[in-house]
Amino acid sequence: MRTVIIKGFKYSAVGAEIRKKDRLDLGLIFSEQPAVAAGVFTTSRVKAAPVLLDMERMVKGRAQAILVNSGVANACTGSTGMQAALTCSGLAAAALHIDENLVQIASTGVIGEQLPVEKVAAAMAELVDGLSPNGYDKVTRAIMTTDTVPKTAERTCSIGGREVKLFGMAKGAGMIMPDMATMLCFVMTDANITADILQQHLSTGVKQSFNRISVDGDTSTNDTVLVLANCTSGNPEIKALDTRDSAMFGTVLAALLKDLALQIIADGEGATKTVTIRVMHAATEKEAEQAARTIANSPLVKTAFFGEDANWGRIIAALGRSGVPFEEDRVDIAFDGVLLVKNGLGLGAAAEASATEVLKQKTFTVTVDLKTGQAAGEIYTCDLSIEYVKINADYRS
Amino acid sequence: MRTVIIKGFKYSAVGAEIRKKDRLDLGLIFSEQPAVAAGVFTTSRVKAAPVLLDMERMVKGRAQAILVNSGVANACTGSTGMQAALTCSGLAAAALHIDENLVQIASTGVIGEQLPVEKVAAAMAELVDGLSPNGYDKVTRAIMTTDTVPKTAERTCSIGGREVKLFGMAKGAGMIMPDMATMLCFVMTDANITADILQQHLSTGVKQSFNRISVDGDTSTNDTVLVLANCTSGNPEIKALDTRDSAMFGTVLAALLKDLALQIIADGEGATKTVTIRVMHAATEKEAEQAARTIANSPLVKTAFFGEDANWGRIIAALGRSGVPFEEDRVDIAFDGVLLVKNGLGLGAAAEASATEVLKQKTFTVTVDLKTGQAAGEIYTCDLSIEYVKINADYRS
Repeated sequence: MRTVIIKGFKYSAVGAEIRKKDRLDLGLIFSEQPAVAAGVFTTSRVKAAPVLLDMERMVKGRAQAILVNSGVANACTGSTGMQAALTCSGLAAAALHIDENLVQIASTGVIGEQLPVEKVAAAMAELVDGLSPNGYDKVTRAIMTTDTVPKTAERTCSIGGREVKLFGMAKGAGMIMPDMATMLCFVMTDANITADILQQHLSTGVKQSFNRISVDGDTSTNDTVLVLANCTSGNPEIKALDTRDSAMFGTVLAALLKDLALQIIADGEGATKTVTIRVMHAATEKEAEQAARTIANSPLVKTAFFGEDANWGRIIAALGRSGVPFEEDRVDIAFDGVLLVKNGLGLGAAAEASATEVLKQKTFTVTVDLKTGQAAGEIYTCDLSIEYVKINADYRS
Repeated sequence: MRTVIIKGFKYSAVGAEIRKKDRLDLGLIFSEQPAVAAGVFTTSRVKAAPVLLDMERMVKGRAQAILVNSGVANACTGSTGMQAALTCSGLAAAALHIDENLVQIASTGVIGEQLPVEKVAAAMAELVDGLSPNGYDKVTRAIMTTDTVPKTAERTCSIGGREVKLFGMAKGAGMIMPDMATMLCFVMTDANITADILQQHLSTGVKQSFNRISVDGDTSTNDTVLVLANCTSGNPEIKALDTRDSAMFGTVLAALLKDLALQIIADGEGATKTVTIRVMHAATEKEAEQAARTIANSPLVKTAFFGEDANWGRIIAALGRSGVPFEEDRVDIAFDGVLLVKNGLGLGAAAEASATEVLKQKTFTVTVDLKTGQAAGEIYTCDLSIEYVKINADYRS
């Protein structure tokens, strides 16, 4: 049994047959009172209709409900798709007796198909009737596509003598190299906080979590992270960025987001391993991240991880084309604690045998030391398996 | 029987057991007289020892021999690797009785292992003894790694009343997104041309061929394209860029390079399809190429090709994250002659069924029309198959 239930939030999900039968595919998150809200959305030039609608509504920093469907992404659907998003949010607002502008909407699934509004309409009464504080598990399942497990995380912290709770859920397994956010992530909290500060903490937290994961280098048209704060915990309102309370909340929110981001990597399409690529002693943080991202996205590096082959040549080859300046004869590479490359040269068969043992684990870190400057950066990734290809060659069939 | 044999060039290859037994792995191309030469090399910051040596020697625009091995790339091998490259080129020069600086050297294979100089030394006499005008077939096989077929191309053209011949060979199947060249390509010609003009035609030709192919987005440490011109055809020397003869030679050389580049894509690791991604009506050529390259490298797009799924949403999603400005509601997408997306919207089930028929072919073109400007660009790619993952999870074992 989950320990964190945040008073004032209710959840519901139903099977609306949006794309397939016999599965939950329509979810609702409801805050009994209008919540302070913040959002981070895809940076893709192609934004789904629900993303465009949410971005417009999020300007006011207030939301009370999130209506979410899987099966159809409502992306590349033109004015018909935008009308569908507006109609669905209107249906939810009417059923919940709230202002339509307080409804955030999210979709995930196939791009280019229209959302079947009549199916959402038909399911709305049952959806709203089902709202309950314990309904979150159903919502976490309703948002899954190629995910194999639901993803949730929770944290509590003490602010001004009051316990503040955070509960988050996320979905995502493919098309994951968010430049801004992952497919979908919703966080509920009872923290008392202003919309501005919530947005700033969310943006910072996303940079260190969802913006650092990559399954396949593809950024989605629908990436959305939303936080609703119903402000009921009784803590003194967090209204400045540089206070101790604010820093505490930001740190806890960031940890929760990273927790969810790593769950997405662990459930990456076909993934058998979760790998942290850490680049240290780069000239700048940007260069460290760029080098780590190039390694993390290399199909040759990722297939070597899958094959449990300590093929460091592919890592240094990816580094070489990353555009980041470094001296080849200074580079060290380690797999967890096993040093495999020293000053650009391999350390031989014994080191490789030890590194191969590290590769057999489900989780490990590859550290690349450039010995150039003082900056470091990490990207979280997974291997590229036969199953990834099978899933994506078959996804729509 | 091949029609193009260029007088004055001889070829040989032997099995030197550099990494494996019972295969050709050491090749030699020899010009009876010092040839005018040009080269294009990897832009990776990590350059293999033979690449560094060739770049230094190529400054003079002259070469007489190319010594090439597969099995070991001699990359990330430090000063020991450079000494090995020097020693091997010295052995070849001594056996051929030519100046050491006229020997170009090339390696392909596993990164990070030292070249076994003693094996090269032991095989040198047999290698040189075997030189013959008909030995090119053996060399094309000696340079193969994960290639499944040898790759050659030939052209003839008439310059100043004389027939000029070109013959080229290439290898490459993985780690293919040359930013400058492919793994290895050698072209022999009897054209009478200056080194400067040869280099300019080569650089232009490579931009339109090897720089436009991508198997997996990885650029190698060893990419090398060399051209040797022995100047024996008797055509008036080509010594300016803007003459009719020069333009003719450049066009024919570019066509030969593109022929070889497309053979590399067709033999891409695990590839079942060759796909041209054409972006038209972009604002600039650079943007057209950037958009095409992002689509060509998307694992989701490539697995959809493998699955013969006309999943245009993945194409528009890749376009969205490419960084290229465009208006979503103006984009058209076609598979060969089948229009699938018009002004950003899918054209429905019938269009998709027709597009799926196109996808069943071994070769097709995806055209993305941005309707923004007048520039166009193409990238040549292949699908991402289960076999690609198998090959690269197992490559060293």
